Amino acid sequence: MLRRTFLVASLGLVLSACAQTSTPVAATQANNETPPNIIFLIGDGMGFEYISAYRYAISERGQALTPTPFDEMLVGAATTYPDDDTWVTDSAAGATALATGVKSYNGAIGVDADEHPQQTVMEKAREMGWHTGAVSTSQVTHATPASFFTHHPSRSMYNAIADSFATTKYGDKWSFDVLLGGGMSYFDRADKNWLPELEQQGMHVVDSYQALEDSMQLPVLGLFAPVALPYSIDDQPRLAQLTRNALRLLSNAQAETGKPFALMVEGSKIDWCGHANDIACLVGEMQDFAQALTVARAFQSRHPNTLIVVTADHSTGGLTLGQGGVYEWHAERVMAINNSLEVLVPGLLERPRDEWQSYLTPRLNLTLSEAQWQRLLTVELRASWELNQQQRALRKTLASIISEVTRTGWTTTGHTAVDVPIMASGPQAEQLRGYKNNTDIGQLLLQIVR
Amino acid sequence: MLRRTFLVASLGLVLSACAQTSTPVAATQANNETPPNIIFLIGDGMGFEYISAYRYAISERGQALTPTPFDEMLVGAATTYPDDDTWVTDSAAGATALATGVKSYNGAIGVDADEHPQQTVMEKAREMGWHTGAVSTSQVTHATPASFFTHHPSRSMYNAIADSFATTKYGDKWSFDVLLGGGMSYFDRADKNWLPELEQQGMHVVDSYQALEDSMQLPVLGLFAPVALPYSIDDQPRLAQLTRNALRLLSNAQAETGKPFALMVEGSKIDWCGHANDIACLVGEMQDFAQALTVARAFQSRHPNTLIVVTADHSTGGLTLGQGGVYEWHAERVMAINNSLEVLVPGLLERPRDEWQSYLTPRLNLTLSEAQWQRLLTVELRASWELNQQQRALRKTLASIISEVTRTGWTTTGHTAVDVPIMASGPQAEQLRGYKNNTDIGQLLLQIVR
Repeated sequence: MLRRTFLVASLGLVLSACAQTSTPVAATQANNETPPNIIFLIGDGMGFEYISAYRYAISERGQALTPTPFDEMLVGAATTYPDDDTWVTDSAAGATALATGVKSYNGAIGVDADEHPQQTVMEKAREMGWHTGAVSTSQVTHATPASFFTHHPSRSMYNAIADSFATTKYGDKWSFDVLLGGGMSYFDRADKNWLPELEQQGMHVVDSYQALEDSMQLPVLGLFAPVALPYSIDDQPRLAQLTRNALRLLSNAQAETGKPFALMVEGSKIDWCGHANDIACLVGEMQDFAQALTVARAFQSRHPNTLIVVTADHSTGGLTLGQGGVYEWHAERVMAINNSLEVLVPGLLERPRDEWQSYLTPRLNLTLSEAQWQRLLTVELRASWELNQQQRALRKTLASIISEVTRTGWTTTGHTAVDVPIMASGPQAEQLRGYKNNTDIGQLLLQIVR
Repeated sequence: MLRRTFLVASLGLVLSACAQTSTPVAATQANNETPPNIIFLIGDGMGFEYISAYRYAISERGQALTPTPFDEMLVGAATTYPDDDTWVTDSAAGATALATGVKSYNGAIGVDADEHPQQTVMEKAREMGWHTGAVSTSQVTHATPASFFTHHPSRSMYNAIADSFATTKYGDKWSFDVLLGGGMSYFDRADKNWLPELEQQGMHVVDSYQALEDSMQLPVLGLFAPVALPYSIDDQPRLAQLTRNALRLLSNAQAETGKPFALMVEGSKIDWCGHANDIACLVGEMQDFAQALTVARAFQSRHPNTLIVVTADHSTGGLTLGQGGVYEWHAERVMAINNSLEVLVPGLLERPRDEWQSYLTPRLNLTLSEAQWQRLLTVELRASWELNQQQRALRKTLASIISEVTRTGWTTTGHTAVDVPIMASGPQAEQLRGYKNNTDIGQLLLQIVR
């Protein structure tokens, strides 16, 4: 990967000429029409294979496939490569392309390959007086939401990204009206607690789903976990609820001002399950993301002047549905698993090995061979290793066994360069038909915001 | 997989009620219009990942991607599952779905799950007086071409499939006007040589590309190899040439009769490279298939009443573009390789090990680490093993090393259940927009043939 020096000065940004100068996607929208609301759902890491897996997981063999909310919206596919010395993007370059219409290097947050800040869809929306928001299941300071609102040379600058969210203002307004997800620890940290200041300036800060449900007034900053939200499979589905509340608040605001809104909704941890090569976790996150899309579609049916776009920044893990030469993929076995590896692995490590089988059996609900149990029970975990090294070793072995039993294939703990799906519905959705560059999506959205 | 007993009696087939009774895709074609020619290109095993790989392979990093002929035709994706006790299809069930609009079990050639013959697009075309043809780079008796013209309970019945091609007649015409590919050994075999009889009945049998170029009259049976044609990377591109000649002959016939034609073109060995986990071989076959599509598109530009559909029966090998946690895929290294594993592995086995490095170096053009050379040079090949067991062991090691160096991921030597792309252009292409079942494609084509 390229090493970048720190060039982006601070939050007082002079935005460079942005993506609209090259417009491969022609805007056909008549200028006198009211621009549509935009709901942009990003399944982080959600390649085509992820949707295939989710569809089989909710279907029953021998019957017609159960449709997913993605199916009737499929319009095309996108390439995801970054402006870097590799064809394989990370989430920062991917989100920057989707948010600004400009390709950049891996790690870039809203800046181009020369680290120059690029105008984002959300910034243009703000300048046009729109309402804006973002929802994510990771910390809100993570690459994807960060790239829609802030500009930083490196995705790892979580505190600086929180500072940007806290301080970037358009008059008396922040860059967002509603920002929901994890990440409390970046806003309330040892060196700085932004929350009292934000509340004093009029921000409604909430830290529970109930408080969010009770919120009636924008702006709202909802931070429901110190870092990321727990996995859906281990806790509860949450993205649909967050999305429903974001849409409720934004559409109430729209009813007052008559201005459209732009909302980004990220199924952030789909990608994390992919990195962990954890298929049950992945299907759980896909379900959660699909439910959020269903909420968005219901909103659209009540408010037809709403464009919904769904895509991924890249595919993660090299997921495939088939392994080891056998023509099978056992969705029903995937669905039998009750927890993510993130829960199961620490659960094992805090127990003596002779309790592992009784701990795992009711949580996996899989029939492991004697050889597979032996591989697991004799996995090397040196006493000299750090806890996370032990976790990695055990997770690798357990993931490999689950992959064998379910016939799930993985090729990497990182990302891949394969194309990803584009789903779209509503005004201008036709513009995304066919094969696209990921930047085409950001450029179209920037055109629509006016 | 299910075991099937032999129920299909013989070649005198009573076709059961066929797929058009359920029509999820509505035919909007006005009945007084001339139906379009159909060119149906099937990339066997060609998942989305294959097109991504091919596009990166022909592109240069740091520049805009080189477009492929697939890109501007992308309209959707299809699910591929069979009517069997698995979500993962084989090529026979896949081709049967595409040819008849009916799902069946793995191994089925033009028959449903009860082994009842189903009318194929080519049979309906014949009944309607159309011209018909097929081109493949495998033997023409292989699953895909066989499923468009014959009905057999098992794909392995190559001789019986050849017999079907030789004897199925519509009056004085065969089921095909032009049939080009490999497979001479199934038509001219120890127990039966069909060729003299066929020629006596008016078939023009050719066995060289030059003789095909010189052919002016249908019907033509062109068999250019005993079994499959050699890989493009080892020999020469050939699918474009075969496709060009098939279109020349069919359109000449059309000019005489005024009847449309239906042509199936299969990039058969894309799948074979996938099974072998051989990325350089795969890109070579993709290039060959893409060139055939370019020929079809040029024909369409001269004859606009031509529908071109491109899809895959499934994805093979669990191909992904990323491996081992590294965010890279080295297309340029893939393109440096000069031969398939099918050539390299026997080339190694016929030499002493101390010549392997000098044999491989100019053919791979890759920088292998010392450890990788050691793995290869010390691979276990027991003297007691059969030649093909030795080949398998060596191929596995060499494929694994090439995958590491190029960062290509594979998860199986079989197929996977992931969705595949649909490309379409010309009259009725709109009908294939969005997310489809593979049977929808066969059903649409059956509707168009009238």
